[in-house]
Amino acid sequence: MTQGSDISLSEEIQKQLTKKRFELIRGMFNSMSPFDIASALESSSPNNRRILWELVDFNVEGEVLNELSIEVREFFLSSMDATEVAQVTEKLEADEIVEIIQELPEKVIRDVLKAMSSQNRKLVSKDLSFAKGTAGRMMNPDVVVVRPSHTIEVIRRYLRIRDELPQDMDKVFVVNRNNILRGNLPLTKILSAKSSEKAEDLMIRKFHSLLATNSEKEVDRLFERNHLISAPVTNDDGELLGRITIDDVIDSIKEEVDQPFRQISGLSRDTFQETFLALRSRGLWLGANLITALLASSVINLFQDTIEKVIFLAVLMPIIASMGGVAATQTLAITVRGLALGQIVSGNLRWILSRELIVSFWNGLFWSIILGLIASFWFKDFDIFLIIIFSMTINLIAAALSGISIPLVLRKLKFDPAIGGGVIVTTVTDIVGFFTFLGVASIVYA
Amino acid sequence: MTQGSDISLSEEIQKQLTKKRFELIRGMFNSMSPFDIASALESSSPNNRRILWELVDFNVEGEVLNELSIEVREFFLSSMDATEVAQVTEKLEADEIVEIIQELPEKVIRDVLKAMSSQNRKLVSKDLSFAKGTAGRMMNPDVVVVRPSHTIEVIRRYLRIRDELPQDMDKVFVVNRNNILRGNLPLTKILSAKSSEKAEDLMIRKFHSLLATNSEKEVDRLFERNHLISAPVTNDDGELLGRITIDDVIDSIKEEVDQPFRQISGLSRDTFQETFLALRSRGLWLGANLITALLASSVINLFQDTIEKVIFLAVLMPIIASMGGVAATQTLAITVRGLALGQIVSGNLRWILSRELIVSFWNGLFWSIILGLIASFWFKDFDIFLIIIFSMTINLIAAALSGISIPLVLRKLKFDPAIGGGVIVTTVTDIVGFFTFLGVASIVYA
Repeated sequence: MTQGSDISLSEEIQKQLTKKRFELIRGMFNSMSPFDIASALESSSPNNRRILWELVDFNVEGEVLNELSIEVREFFLSSMDATEVAQVTEKLEADEIVEIIQELPEKVIRDVLKAMSSQNRKLVSKDLSFAKGTAGRMMNPDVVVVRPSHTIEVIRRYLRIRDELPQDMDKVFVVNRNNILRGNLPLTKILSAKSSEKAEDLMIRKFHSLLATNSEKEVDRLFERNHLISAPVTNDDGELLGRITIDDVIDSIKEEVDQPFRQISGLSRDTFQETFLALRSRGLWLGANLITALLASSVINLFQDTIEKVIFLAVLMPIIASMGGVAATQTLAITVRGLALGQIVSGNLRWILSRELIVSFWNGLFWSIILGLIASFWFKDFDIFLIIIFSMTINLIAAALSGISIPLVLRKLKFDPAIGGGVIVTTVTDIVGFFTFLGVASIVYA
Repeated sequence: MTQGSDISLSEEIQKQLTKKRFELIRGMFNSMSPFDIASALESSSPNNRRILWELVDFNVEGEVLNELSIEVREFFLSSMDATEVAQVTEKLEADEIVEIIQELPEKVIRDVLKAMSSQNRKLVSKDLSFAKGTAGRMMNPDVVVVRPSHTIEVIRRYLRIRDELPQDMDKVFVVNRNNILRGNLPLTKILSAKSSEKAEDLMIRKFHSLLATNSEKEVDRLFERNHLISAPVTNDDGELLGRITIDDVIDSIKEEVDQPFRQISGLSRDTFQETFLALRSRGLWLGANLITALLASSVINLFQDTIEKVIFLAVLMPIIASMGGVAATQTLAITVRGLALGQIVSGNLRWILSRELIVSFWNGLFWSIILGLIASFWFKDFDIFLIIIFSMTINLIAAALSGISIPLVLRKLKFDPAIGGGVIVTTVTDIVGFFTFLGVASIVYA
């Protein structure tokens, strides 16, 4: 009996790695679940990943691949040939095999299919015939079916002779002779019914079902919405094609929640991404920021004379920009998260916008009065008081407007609302902040 | 049969709300799952929430409360008295009732318990005897148990006479006469075994089990790690207390992934948080930023003379600070996410730190050369070239160091590594950026 414990296996493995105790790690891996082995690999640098992978028992390599995130899985798959891929995934369920091989190049997929057992090839090809990111790709085509006319006794006998029932099976499906899905029978019902009763009299006729063309997001919603353990997948004619179970869905739900955070900061899913890849992706991000920062600077450049005359403006101007940036980033994060969770829709957008404007206006007014007082006494100048109140309040209003509208515009243009949003909103608040602050100052101190 | 569809129910409800078609919404609610009704409430402004809540059928109010996030649930609970709470939650499972009432004040909880049926009171009190956020609080104490000596026939008969089997039941538990957990029998096994076989000969003895004192995080990990549908909960002596099912775990896994994003931006879980509450929480965040921005400004203040002499320094200095801010925020996000996912541990911290330093150094060098060239030609000054390269590279190194060390220090001080991290790291890069840039300039242009 294994107790759920908090001891960080990952920590232990990293420790043994630095001591180069490889055989000890091999032994640890033998008693760890594929999930934990995958976590250990994901929590390692690229070099250590290669070393650790060599210590994974060949028989669990397939299951470990199945647990890895796409990026880290790619890392290992790229060093395997088609026969190896077919071998290590041999004992996985069809949907798991598909998830692993679907990222490979077309030609390699064909080779892997050729190297598979004919049983696996048949099931996997069925899934691959559907588009990526659909229920058809996620389903396991291996389902237990019975006929409406079967009695409970027949069904029980049938289940008894089948070698192995699919993992996580909680019900059998009832289909007619054309394989059209008619209902389902939970195992609890099969257990508690009288043996003479018929499937058609006992089966549940009203239940949740997916189309093979439904998107991953639709699958997630159906499971979440109805607390399902499994759901059947059919084609448009109602023909049963396979089933999806909750464990296929959890990863996808996690990814959905994780994505906005990663994208708003421009991060890879892989924390231990190789240095060169990180250098390139973050370099692009910084380059984009350089361009926008130059835009903001060119605004300052317009007011060189004013700054020369009243030098403390240079001291204060970053504060106006910074307050706007913080407010805009918060509104942006709310909007991106609300859009990702499907909470913000056109009908309630106005309320969110008006709340953000109210919050920004009052916070702008309040904190600009505080800053105005500080600045007036600091620089013994009382004109600056009103300049700060005016420019900071305007900038916080601009922050609310851009924090909401920029992700919406990005989405309209078919970009992801999160990507690049942060860089754009802070450019807006930098430009508005510098322009109003220095612009008004240039009039007042003219 | 319900098809998983993509039509936004939330969108439709918001539309009918603006048209004040309340009876139509009431009708829609009647055919919606509690999850969807809860989503509609969460996607509404506080005023609309009150209106919508009145349209929810009394019989599903309990299930809807169960689906809501803590903040929105509080919003409705605060307007209900103890008897009402007991009534609407009457048909929920004990763990669901506990999740709803545990946020209420002590006294109200006692009143709600008094108003419950004695059966519910017994089960709920059992859960409440464990600390908040533990497996004991999450478990459903209603479990189906059999004895080791029972034959499959006896077990089948027993399951047949029980009215209703617990939702999502996938196995029965085998306990001895002292209620000590000995093993479990999956329903698939009960179905396929011979009727004369005994529980003790068939039962699975090696399985995953939780202690009532395990934390929510430990529960999540056990389920994720082993793809469980349900797990038994015992006390330290191995006595069976209840079971936890996957649907109790999904919400908690989602929350775990969502939390770093919310905290790093200082957001409430509730997108439609009331204006006043948003004003206050965001005001505090802006206030904190004002203090740190003043610190950065006081650095600029030291170099007023230099700026007065070379006015274009004021134009360029925000760029140095901004590039550092972007780099620091990215490193911070990686660190916070890696810590939250349990990927970053002391053994691999050095690798992450060295990768971030390498990435920051080369990006700093590369982009500062670009900026240096632009600035040299823009202001026809070639001293600025080296000043920019020096200060921006230093600032990006400071960004990597602070982005990693600040969340670690916050965690050491028992703060959440995400909270406030963003404000602190950008202060560091502002200060370092202004200081190195203006400091070197003051020497060069002295």
